[in-house]
Amino acid sequence: MIDVYAFATPNSVKVPIALEELGLPYALHGINVRKGEQKAPDFVALNPNAKVPVLVDPEGPDGRLVLTESAAILIYLAEKTGRLLPLHGTGRARVFEQLFFHASGLGPAFGQSGFFQRQAAEPQPLAIQRFSTEARRTLGVLDGVLADRAFVAGDDFTIADIAHFGWLWRREFAGVTFDETPHVAAWFEKVSARPAVQRALDRANALIPQS
Amino acid sequence: MIDVYAFATPNSVKVPIALEELGLPYALHGINVRKGEQKAPDFVALNPNAKVPVLVDPEGPDGRLVLTESAAILIYLAEKTGRLLPLHGTGRARVFEQLFFHASGLGPAFGQSGFFQRQAAEPQPLAIQRFSTEARRTLGVLDGVLADRAFVAGDDFTIADIAHFGWLWRREFAGVTFDETPHVAAWFEKVSARPAVQRALDRANALIPQS
Repeated sequence: MIDVYAFATPNSVKVPIALEELGLPYALHGINVRKGEQKAPDFVALNPNAKVPVLVDPEGPDGRLVLTESAAILIYLAEKTGRLLPLHGTGRARVFEQLFFHASGLGPAFGQSGFFQRQAAEPQPLAIQRFSTEARRTLGVLDGVLADRAFVAGDDFTIADIAHFGWLWRREFAGVTFDETPHVAAWFEKVSARPAVQRALDRANALIPQS
Repeated sequence: MIDVYAFATPNSVKVPIALEELGLPYALHGINVRKGEQKAPDFVALNPNAKVPVLVDPEGPDGRLVLTESAAILIYLAEKTGRLLPLHGTGRARVFEQLFFHASGLGPAFGQSGFFQRQAAEPQPLAIQRFSTEARRTLGVLDGVLADRAFVAGDDFTIADIAHFGWLWRREFAGVTFDETPHVAAWFEKVSARPAVQRALDRANALIPQS
């Protein structure tokens, strides 16, 4: 069975969502990043970059595969099953375009916006302004994309929707709302309502220890 | 013929490198980001995210294709030609893993490190520390990867090498050196020496107006 090492974080949650959508069984192992467990030697042996999520597939293409980077895991699972990623055409290019817009643009902007608003040891006003502006700007770009499409890469739900969902699910951390992005708001509601997404969020949230 | 809209930037340069490696003819159009040309209406019509590079392929899979996000363009070109990206197996997963490690990790860390050291309107000491530390940390992770491999995703040169090359070529902006990462240094020298890489860098550098 596939093992997933993760927590209830924007990037982690993508992997259980994909596995639930694809109907693949998996064991979900909590790595509590609030306690720094992603820096423990056992975990760093799995991922030298010390980040969740990590997927371990005992039945990988050449035997056991240990794979990091949430979007690379999404592509791997899509190609393993032949689903959620068009095999060719413009639609395929749009999936990769959105995966990288998320990974290099919207995702880092949301993450840094939240960090400087909530976790920095001292106020850094220009950094707060820079990243909260960029978070709103990238969300506006995504709203423009969704003005013309049912899902972020075209007519169908793909792994690119799963990629964007993680940070939009945790938008409160970044200090972002959907007040000015109605197309994103409608898309988020539609994706949230998918039974597979609900199951994955339940499993991810259950990793948070109850105090 | 393929049109590329780009400048001599870390992300832009990846596209001419891939086109030179693949032997595809292209017209390179300069978008001077130092003058803000990426925010001009004509360019934003091509890329609503207002970033270089953009590729326009008149012979795309479904007709004319306008594609943004440098790494998505690399994948598109690799799949169009069947080169620089393994078709299956662990090697394929490793290419995607490195593409996203670059896009979400090393690349943003280098970019923000340079911004806060060189371009911020006022000093933000914690932001400088945060991003310069992260730039060095991610470079160290890459050095560990290259301790075991000839190229970043395995034995062969792939689009993942092209992706990492852009920011490592512009490492001075980020205030980063290779002094403590000998494997990265050796890899960089090897990649820099490729004739296709040299041709692409010459064409990209020629986009900078001579004052």
